[in-house]
Amino acid sequence: MKPDIIRIAQATFTVSSLEASKEFYVDLLGMNLLHEENDALYLRGVEDREWTLKLEKCGDGEVPRVRHLGYRVRCGECLESLVELAEKQGLPYRWEEELDRPKMLRLQDPFGIPVAFYHEVKTYPWLLQEYHQHRGPGLQRVDHCNVRVPDVKATLDWYGQELGFRLSEYTVDEAGDYWAAWIQRRGGVHDFALTNGAGPCLHHWAYWMPDAMSIIKTCDILAGARQPERIERGPGRHGVSNAFFLYIRDPDGHRIELYTSDYVTVDPDFEPIKWLRDDPRRQTLWGAKTPRSWFEEASPMEAFDGGIQPAQEGKLTGIPVHVI
Amino acid sequence: MKPDIIRIAQATFTVSSLEASKEFYVDLLGMNLLHEENDALYLRGVEDREWTLKLEKCGDGEVPRVRHLGYRVRCGECLESLVELAEKQGLPYRWEEELDRPKMLRLQDPFGIPVAFYHEVKTYPWLLQEYHQHRGPGLQRVDHCNVRVPDVKATLDWYGQELGFRLSEYTVDEAGDYWAAWIQRRGGVHDFALTNGAGPCLHHWAYWMPDAMSIIKTCDILAGARQPERIERGPGRHGVSNAFFLYIRDPDGHRIELYTSDYVTVDPDFEPIKWLRDDPRRQTLWGAKTPRSWFEEASPMEAFDGGIQPAQEGKLTGIPVHVI
Amino acid sequence: MKPDIIRIAQATFTVSSLEASKEFYVDLLGMNLLHEENDALYLRGVEDREWTLKLEKCGDGEVPRVRHLGYRVRCGECLESLVELAEKQGLPYRWEEELDRPKMLRLQDPFGIPVAFYHEVKTYPWLLQEYHQHRGPGLQRVDHCNVRVPDVKATLDWYGQELGFRLSEYTVDEAGDYWAAWIQRRGGVHDFALTNGAGPCLHHWAYWMPDAMSIIKTCDILAGARQPERIERGPGRHGVSNAFFLYIRDPDGHRIELYTSDYVTVDPDFEPIKWLRDDPRRQTLWGAKTPRSWFEEASPMEAFDGGIQPAQEGKLTGIPVHVI
Amino acid sequence: MKPDIIRIAQATFTVSSLEASKEFYVDLLGMNLLHEENDALYLRGVEDREWTLKLEKCGDGEVPRVRHLGYRVRCGECLESLVELAEKQGLPYRWEEELDRPKMLRLQDPFGIPVAFYHEVKTYPWLLQEYHQHRGPGLQRVDHCNVRVPDVKATLDWYGQELGFRLSEYTVDEAGDYWAAWIQRRGGVHDFALTNGAGPCLHHWAYWMPDAMSIIKTCDILAGARQPERIERGPGRHGVSNAFFLYIRDPDGHRIELYTSDYVTVDPDFEPIKWLRDDPRRQTLWGAKTPRSWFEEASPMEAFDGGIQPAQEGKLTGIPVHVI
Repeated sequence: MKPDIIRIAQATFTVSSLEASKEFYVDLLGMNLLHEENDALYLRGVEDREWTLKLEKCGDGEVPRVRHLGYRVRCGECLESLVELAEKQGLPYRWEEELDRPKMLRLQDPFGIPVAFYHEVKTYPWLLQEYHQHRGPGLQRVDHCNVRVPDVKATLDWYGQELGFRLSEYTVDEAGDYWAAWIQRRGGVHDFALTNGAGPCLHHWAYWMPDAMSIIKTCDILAGARQPERIERGPGRHGVSNAFFLYIRDPDGHRIELYTSDYVTVDPDFEPIKWLRDDPRRQTLWGAKTPRSWFEEASPMEAFDGGIQPAQEGKLTGIPVHVI
Repeated sequence: MKPDIIRIAQATFTVSSLEASKEFYVDLLGMNLLHEENDALYLRGVEDREWTLKLEKCGDGEVPRVRHLGYRVRCGECLESLVELAEKQGLPYRWEEELDRPKMLRLQDPFGIPVAFYHEVKTYPWLLQEYHQHRGPGLQRVDHCNVRVPDVKATLDWYGQELGFRLSEYTVDEAGDYWAAWIQRRGGVHDFALTNGAGPCLHHWAYWMPDAMSIIKTCDILAGARQPERIERGPGRHGVSNAFFLYIRDPDGHRIELYTSDYVTVDPDFEPIKWLRDDPRRQTLWGAKTPRSWFEEASPMEAFDGGIQPAQEGKLTGIPVHVI
Repeated sequence: MKPDIIRIAQATFTVSSLEASKEFYVDLLGMNLLHEENDALYLRGVEDREWTLKLEKCGDGEVPRVRHLGYRVRCGECLESLVELAEKQGLPYRWEEELDRPKMLRLQDPFGIPVAFYHEVKTYPWLLQEYHQHRGPGLQRVDHCNVRVPDVKATLDWYGQELGFRLSEYTVDEAGDYWAAWIQRRGGVHDFALTNGAGPCLHHWAYWMPDAMSIIKTCDILAGARQPERIERGPGRHGVSNAFFLYIRDPDGHRIELYTSDYVTVDPDFEPIKWLRDDPRRQTLWGAKTPRSWFEEASPMEAFDGGIQPAQEGKLTGIPVHVI
Repeated sequence: MKPDIIRIAQATFTVSSLEASKEFYVDLLGMNLLHEENDALYLRGVEDREWTLKLEKCGDGEVPRVRHLGYRVRCGECLESLVELAEKQGLPYRWEEELDRPKMLRLQDPFGIPVAFYHEVKTYPWLLQEYHQHRGPGLQRVDHCNVRVPDVKATLDWYGQELGFRLSEYTVDEAGDYWAAWIQRRGGVHDFALTNGAGPCLHHWAYWMPDAMSIIKTCDILAGARQPERIERGPGRHGVSNAFFLYIRDPDGHRIELYTSDYVTVDPDFEPIKWLRDDPRRQTLWGAKTPRSWFEEASPMEAFDGGIQPAQEGKLTGIPVHVI
């Protein structure tokens, strides 16, 4: 039996200052603080019924990192079939628990990405219609994550064959090799995206926004707080996905995307959309160039036994030409 | 094998004047006219890759009606399993074809609703990113349909058990009986909704809109064209679904909903949301009352052998109290 | 010398509970509380550089009322010329002071409306670009007030001849008599509007909003707080003024309009726009009917010597037919 | 008597291809084509009651240019007082007429800027509420123009002293010298702006937009038409003016700004807002850098006796540091 992955659902980052993170995520972005502990914040969007981002204080001298990316699965048996897969392929795994999720399967995929899977979770009443409690721009729900990997094609194939992800869009370089890919389980454009480059590293973690104006408002809020430097790229319309987007950087440099208005991919004859890496409309439909930092900077990931997962160089060289 | 229904996908209405319909759907709503024949218009939204609404000139003296509601299924075998279901339950069925869809299974469900199922369809390049070709408010894609039926609970049960629809929200009357239900296959709030009342009749056919402002713009366009009477209800925010909505009536009285911004229902522990029929926030979260016509008027449906399907009275009596 | 009136600038209302008012205006509407005293709140929008609405606790058993409507004038001499006018026409007047405004000329116009004029005011840094401090829907600045008066034409003439107001739009009844008028000093559609009916009473006090979506958000916030009954009319697009609007009622029934996107009236050949009272597009361009309370309820005004100014019946009878 | 200037009201540009201009302004931007002649297009926004932009075919080999910037004045006598000013200061002037404006005073200001003044104009029913006729993003009305001049301070002083313009915002360089200024007659942020640099040249001509989303839509339309290169800067929020903006370039390189949501400047104690040239929030509140072309490119202006007005170097050297 193939595990039935529902969707990307949560992540844990380590951060150097909970106070600075709280100002960014709670005071400015207006995320709901579902739980607060001495060394951790548990955050969610207004549609989330569970916490979807944990920020954990990292140890002295430790580099802030991504501890894992978490997927929700349909059933308990799905977890067992993932264990079988891990056994068969020799992937390191263990059982963990975290607040509200008593049983998580933490494993390392063949590309060194720390992933976690869970079925059971304690949920809370959402805030979707509690509009009087919304704050800031109103982040709505987890949308997707994007990981920089050395070999996009191999990663894509594994997630497709073993975990049943479906391709929605992809980018090829001038030689026709896969430079980036967007894959999904949930019927939207993506739960997970892959970009060629040194990795594995988290490129960004994304929340769905209620509309484009809430993204504009995010820029205004960051500017009002005299933190315009948190805005790295956008706002704009993506060519890939057609979504309206903004990339911002948290106090530790973790990149958050605010994202809205992509399209539906449920049809059985949906044909993945192909883009050329240097098409000016690919990154931003409006032709806007992308800052170099967006290609060069990403969050390190935690290795299975702790420490930072060593990064391998990207298999393909070069980055898109529409860069400043 | 249970048929794998992907989503509600298309409908055919008959209309008394193609010219009047074209003005409404194409000139004012800006829908894309994919094909035009002497006696029919084939329309779609900018994200649709196939036509999603066919308007057919009805014969002299005929009452405009809904010929069928069409669902896309995952595979050819899905159609065979639907035939088996029809045979087993004695539901009338036949094979039909229509433009771009060579093989449709047209059957009548146990409640007299004319439904069609298809797998194969000719698709066309979408207009999603052809923004310079968008017109009017920019209807985006088919979202759902809503049918008035005499027995909501029985209909709900059949669609759940036989076709695998999942319940997202429901309304009960003071006795606790099902007064309305919203069910889905696609992972959103609904592909199909059921409301208690004389039927089967089509209550409305809905398109997804890019954002709330495009719905506001629709009102402005209809007002500009000196047709404010086409606006029946809204704009507003639904309590059920949390969507921003508008109900308009076409020249034959067919009701179209423009709808945006509901939520995701893919989680395995998603709990259907229950509303009391007379909760003032149920219909419109803002407490706005609903015009009586919205409860009393609906489009008749075509019987399997032609003519109008006779309507049965709704099993439950009474309509919500928030009516004007 | 004619007094040079700049704009409508502030008002004072009395309220029965400062706590309830604070919840409504500050917690829900997000107005900035510039000063707070034991018996008064001083509020403003994010663009206002001075307080623009004072809410004063009314005495036990007193009916909440409007104490005055305040206009900013260009110069100190403008106040003197207003005194001359009052002397000449026998209008009661006195000098008053209030917080931040050391010298206000309080007079009663010939129709019993309590008005105040001031030149000097203490201003504060605005919050327009302090987006991180905006709360709720972000009320921006005072826009206009609307008063119900027994004789629209006489009031209009006096404000035009004595105070230099210019007519932008007006409504006539079937006999061609003035049923309502919108007049301005500032170059927009209106600083002041007059509606036929028992009065003088304040019909509503209006704030400019950043955009239509902020008005939609207000509805959502009131609904979230389980106070949908505070929404009286709208949201919608006015025929008169073309503005997008919402009418809400505060805990004492004072009516607030949230308003945005009218047009510019500075041209010397601007021709006032005439509407027929029963044109369905006049009130709401979309043809929506207006609740009867909107015509029948209004805030009493304080008489010059205290107490409530007695209301006279409207000279014209009847209200528009598009009422529910 | 000082001339009473109402507002910036219209301009005439020459262009190399009316066909290309028509595609840009009419087909893509959706401007209303009020008149069309063999060698000219007359355009307006939906709120404009007169044409506000004339595009004239330029002669073979001629450089596209700005023929004049036109201001509306309150009265016929205003034109006479402008003639007196011209006589007194030795400014070249003549009477001209153009379509719908029988009597225009064309003069050259002391800085070589070709300006025209008129009182009388033929107006047309506006399209503001004819929403069904709006096309594209819905440009609404003329807002302002921005001119690059060698000596901002001298130009500012002359327009203030002789024509009664009021300062709303200004930028100083590190030495405290005026690097840019925004001045107004109409009660908004500006009718006219001045930027230091080689000139006189037209930096941009601006239309007011109904809201920020209509500006986003403009980007989408230009991208849909495969003309993303027409987008030069933005969209974003200005620090100066607080407006939401977009700069686009027409087929001849004339720069158009789409602009919305600034603030009101009518108060007598309004204090002009001062910015430092290198404040990162000045150009775009969000800290976005400005493309170098935005500082380096501008439209030449026609000299009084034909030909191109020779440009003088800007008195101040350097451009803001936030440039890419």
